[in-house]
Amino acid sequence: MAGPRTRHAHATETRELILTTAERLFAEHGVAAVSNRQISEAAGQANNFAVGYHFGTKTDLVAAIVRRHAPSIERRRTDALAAIQGSQALRDWLGCLVLPTTEHLASLGSPSWYARFIAQATTDPVLREIVIGETQASPSMPAVTDGLKRLMPVLPADVVAERGDMSRHLIVHVCAERERALQEGSPTPRATWEGAAVGLIDALAGLWQAPFTATK
Amino acid sequence: MAGPRTRHAHATETRELILTTAERLFAEHGVAAVSNRQISEAAGQANNFAVGYHFGTKTDLVAAIVRRHAPSIERRRTDALAAIQGSQALRDWLGCLVLPTTEHLASLGSPSWYARFIAQATTDPVLREIVIGETQASPSMPAVTDGLKRLMPVLPADVVAERGDMSRHLIVHVCAERERALQEGSPTPRATWEGAAVGLIDALAGLWQAPFTATK
Repeated sequence: MAGPRTRHAHATETRELILTTAERLFAEHGVAAVSNRQISEAAGQANNFAVGYHFGTKTDLVAAIVRRHAPSIERRRTDALAAIQGSQALRDWLGCLVLPTTEHLASLGSPSWYARFIAQATTDPVLREIVIGETQASPSMPAVTDGLKRLMPVLPADVVAERGDMSRHLIVHVCAERERALQEGSPTPRATWEGAAVGLIDALAGLWQAPFTATK
Repeated sequence: MAGPRTRHAHATETRELILTTAERLFAEHGVAAVSNRQISEAAGQANNFAVGYHFGTKTDLVAAIVRRHAPSIERRRTDALAAIQGSQALRDWLGCLVLPTTEHLASLGSPSWYARFIAQATTDPVLREIVIGETQASPSMPAVTDGLKRLMPVLPADVVAERGDMSRHLIVHVCAERERALQEGSPTPRATWEGAAVGLIDALAGLWQAPFTATK
């Protein structure tokens, strides 16, 4: 008979397997198109309610996938911030926005599914709140936003918000499209994730430094 | 008994009603989450197979929604191109990229659903091919891309492709997020679609003019 320690290890393993399977299926077919039952089956669970048992609702499962990746991204952002402390260079601060994600994706190897999962979830009318909420819970993110605001004192608050949203859209969807192209073997504008990050930082530097037009 | 002309008018009306209903449901719940049966019911069709009868598969329905908006956007782009013939100003060419979409959205009134529908569909792993294909079928689009290339002779082809993709992501997702905020009554960085277009053109001007870093 299995002791409590073994049962605990087994449950952790099952949870991991469900998270990996769900992330792949969500990235491949869209979050709304995949049922908890299909995930349980694809994860080889005899019990069709395994997802519900281990995670609760689909919303809870999506939040769990986001939280599985969060520590690696958060650690990279904290390190990046420590390394550029006091810098006046816009590219350094944009690096803190871009590199934690692209480096994390590079560390996952190919095929990865996380970038497409995030693109799917942030476009979903219901799940976007959860994903954006989990992302904004990052303790290091406000430091990056503050750094950008300090470097761009001329920008009105609305334009800072506008360009912050635009930066998020660019990072999420450029990474998702690159991840898909890598898996399909289709051409990409940059050979590596490192290159993709450079392309994003170039573009974002232009975007943030662009003169702004006030509108009513 | 209804004559052939009346029956034809009735079928056209039903098709319109199904398209409007499907677009709204797709925007609200995600394309994958909505079945043809649910659309038939929400459109008040006694026959649950009305969508299949009038449009075929869900993919055909998505293509039909895209084609319903295409002529208005295409006409606006053709007019905009004619108006800036020979211009050397980057903002003029970026206007041809941004304004046909934002002006079309403004013309739909609020709530509109088209921007969210397009964001959903272009993020869907299967439908994105159809939507991007329908969009690229626009006869006026290559003229805009060529104009941008001519103005930016220093950019390598890969960087032109990279920034073209980035421009598409920005327009699609800024418009979708604005459309959602308008319906929810949440704050937006710009008061009008005209203002949103100005913000996009400002940002894209910076993005396209940004110095590029070559990577291996």
